[in-house]
Amino acid sequence: MLAAPTHAPTQPPISDRHRLRPAQLDMPPRLLLGPGPSNAHPRVLQALGMRQVGHLDPCFIALMNEVQELLRYGWQTDNTLTIPVSGTGSAAMEATLANLVEPGDRVLIGINGYFGHRLTDMAQRYGAEVRAIHKPWGETFSLAELRTALETHRPAILALVHAETSTGARQPLEGVGDLCREFDCLLLADTVTSLGGVPLFLDAWGVDAAYSGSQKALSCPPGIAPFTLGDRAIAKLNRRQSPVPNWYLDMSLVGRYWGSDRTYHHTAPINMNYALREALMLVAEEGLDARWQRHQTVAELLWDGLEALGLRCHVAREFRLPTLTTVLIPDGIDGKAVARTLLNDYNIEIGGGLGELAGRVWRIGLMGFNSRPETVLTLLKALETVLPRFR
Amino acid sequence: MLAAPTHAPTQPPISDRHRLRPAQLDMPPRLLLGPGPSNAHPRVLQALGMRQVGHLDPCFIALMNEVQELLRYGWQTDNTLTIPVSGTGSAAMEATLANLVEPGDRVLIGINGYFGHRLTDMAQRYGAEVRAIHKPWGETFSLAELRTALETHRPAILALVHAETSTGARQPLEGVGDLCREFDCLLLADTVTSLGGVPLFLDAWGVDAAYSGSQKALSCPPGIAPFTLGDRAIAKLNRRQSPVPNWYLDMSLVGRYWGSDRTYHHTAPINMNYALREALMLVAEEGLDARWQRHQTVAELLWDGLEALGLRCHVAREFRLPTLTTVLIPDGIDGKAVARTLLNDYNIEIGGGLGELAGRVWRIGLMGFNSRPETVLTLLKALETVLPRFR
Repeated sequence: MLAAPTHAPTQPPISDRHRLRPAQLDMPPRLLLGPGPSNAHPRVLQALGMRQVGHLDPCFIALMNEVQELLRYGWQTDNTLTIPVSGTGSAAMEATLANLVEPGDRVLIGINGYFGHRLTDMAQRYGAEVRAIHKPWGETFSLAELRTALETHRPAILALVHAETSTGARQPLEGVGDLCREFDCLLLADTVTSLGGVPLFLDAWGVDAAYSGSQKALSCPPGIAPFTLGDRAIAKLNRRQSPVPNWYLDMSLVGRYWGSDRTYHHTAPINMNYALREALMLVAEEGLDARWQRHQTVAELLWDGLEALGLRCHVAREFRLPTLTTVLIPDGIDGKAVARTLLNDYNIEIGGGLGELAGRVWRIGLMGFNSRPETVLTLLKALETVLPRFR
Repeated sequence: MLAAPTHAPTQPPISDRHRLRPAQLDMPPRLLLGPGPSNAHPRVLQALGMRQVGHLDPCFIALMNEVQELLRYGWQTDNTLTIPVSGTGSAAMEATLANLVEPGDRVLIGINGYFGHRLTDMAQRYGAEVRAIHKPWGETFSLAELRTALETHRPAILALVHAETSTGARQPLEGVGDLCREFDCLLLADTVTSLGGVPLFLDAWGVDAAYSGSQKALSCPPGIAPFTLGDRAIAKLNRRQSPVPNWYLDMSLVGRYWGSDRTYHHTAPINMNYALREALMLVAEEGLDARWQRHQTVAELLWDGLEALGLRCHVAREFRLPTLTTVLIPDGIDGKAVARTLLNDYNIEIGGGLGELAGRVWRIGLMGFNSRPETVLTLLKALETVLPRFR
């Protein structure tokens, strides 16, 4: 019944040089207690494998609405433009700057860790005149310091990292939005390691633009990234004199794909949206209050247990993120070797330090599904067992 | 055992306004025969749900190498910089231009469908001086026409769409690379709807930069996108006077993350990489020759069957893509209503036309796992049943 093939009588020979025959996919059962990804919730992994529909299918469009609505709950915002970007958290981070920065705009960035530097790099690529305020890695900015900086620099945008994944510090945002309104500037917040794990009130705090990742406290695999713009941010986007110099992340196009028009832009990552929906459903089912309390309670169990082992945390308790803890590596101990041993002997992943904290701390994440007392017990016992070998 | 929570004595009330309680995820069993996504292969969906490891885990780094090597096989290239971009095909498309275009570079674009226009939009955002050559949607450029255009415009880059998803036309690339070398210009090819389904020899044809999607003939969900640069393209990237004005897609950074350094850039979408690896393994197991022949044979079965139903294809047989067929909607028939009926009554998705072809064609994809004779039978019988209702 099948006709003979007609293609390519003159085609070049096919090379088998790169024709690998790898083994069936199998991965060790890691407990991911580093800075992320954290382990996805089993229900999320199940949702990920659901059969596909088209990205313009009425069923998928209904799902897109649900994802948007559930993101608004997680962030406590009414922002209409609340969507998942079809990339990782870094893409959503870049989306805020690509859309809001016009060449020559002054952007004030609070740098107290790795991601402040990244914001600086990105903002410069979009032509911003970057001004920076600095704090040692692990410390945070006070309202008074922010007021002084706004008075001095008069920026169009103030960018702060709510949850610094490189340091484990929580930057309080209460009152910062009011301050930004006083100085007629937008407030941009990195909430990659806080959304779904740490109290977060975008609207009450006056945050105008925010982004997050899926693979932290939402317990969804990486590859899709929450993004939101409020009215003041959208007004700035609409006032642009020049087109957004980034096609993939241009919210004047992406917004129409996710908005009521559903104008084709790119093909949304269908299965990653299934997974994110399930992850956000888990947040809604548990409720934000219970979820934030769980993260706090489990983190305190870790902190107390680390102290009992004679270990010290890098960040002052008041400003510690429950989702990510930086632990000082005791003098004379090879931090990398400890982490390698935890991975090889017990399938436990913890992270090392970045930048100023490289070699000085371990980073321990207790996020989403992994934020459970038994996870803490496993890690504490493993540390208790492994550390004496390295003293 | 758990300590009392200490957080947020002064926190605002939590709003339940957006706290949706959606139903358990379920999607209808669609047969996706539109322009993409196509149905993922069952083995790919299974791989997608595999438990996660960290993105810097030795197991994941080994997997990254396998994905890169298998992509080289699929594209028939030895290019070292062959990676999946952490976004959809449009992100990989933008990555080629973001990295290769410097402000003022002349870029010649062959426009014979929707994606030529998109390349133009993107290239302009990166400051290119775009020159275009046009053909009616569904036709292709001859070598002689390309030579004349290169002589006239003397571009730094020639961009052609190998497989125009909007028209179903296959642009022959044999000899174009030699021509580009003669005129000292780079050849950039869109292979979104050809990789894994249509003969493609990047190195033999002298293609310097290419990108693709995962959700077409590779039968992987959307959300990760093949990308490659050859030596001549990398030399241009290294000669840049200005940084790449796009952080997420900057190959001078991304390349180091996927290269031997493994320098942290962003968090790769772990599970999407599992899925892509499985999809590429299926290509390697079947072999390119058998896979290309299968796509051609099954497409011819469709074309003959459509003719028997009195329907005509838009593209001349010689230049038809086996992966995507544009079918002329007979006069007096409401194309959208037919597509809606196929979806609602039989769970079969086909696509409509874009741009010049809007309202004039249906787009039928037979890609990857869906390129099977029984798929064609199902669709033909459904059309035979549905069409008389609309005449």
